[in-house]
Amino acid sequence: MKGRVTVSLRTGVLDVEGKAIGKALTSLGFGGDIDVRVGRVFEIELPESSPEVALSRLKDMAVKLLSNPIMESYRLELVGSAPGAALGTTGT
Amino acid sequence: MKGRVTVSLRTGVLDVEGKAIGKALTSLGFGGDIDVRVGRVFEIELPESSPEVALSRLKDMAVKLLSNPIMESYRLELVGSAPGAALGTTGT
Repeated sequence: MKGRVTVSLRTGVLDVEGKAIGKALTSLGFGGDIDVRVGRVFEIELPESSPEVALSRLKDMAVKLLSNPIMESYRLELVGSAPGAALGTTGT
Repeated sequence: MKGRVTVSLRTGVLDVEGKAIGKALTSLGFGGDIDVRVGRVFEIELPESSPEVALSRLKDMAVKLLSNPIMESYRLELVGSAPGAALGTTGT
């Protein structure tokens, strides 16, 4: 089973890279004032066969290594399962 | 409407950062030989109201700025639409 952890800056934290990309898009002719937020995705091969166990393992990984809880939030997904069926989001 | 472009290294291209994260996860006790692939996500606010137009604009952005077509592939999504309804994937 494959899991996906998406880590992005919390709302309110200035995303400098996103701002730069927005400006680059504008200069390429995509219109003015484009809001872009940048994040990172980790696709992880998991040995678990149960979605619940896999999600809890994925959450552990996100908390202990992949995200900085002060500035970033993360979203967990299982790839290949029904879309949206096994989604876990953490905002706080 | 919000669009999401996920850019990741093509299969076969060595993902050094992913390997390092896999080793770090192993040393944290998550088991041995964990396969991790790292990518980047761009969440972009789009002025379009039609999903088709928004997706084609998103594809343009991915091709012209956000991805390196030699080493990377990209996935396009519209956020807030029905899950999986407006997915465009490019592998070549």
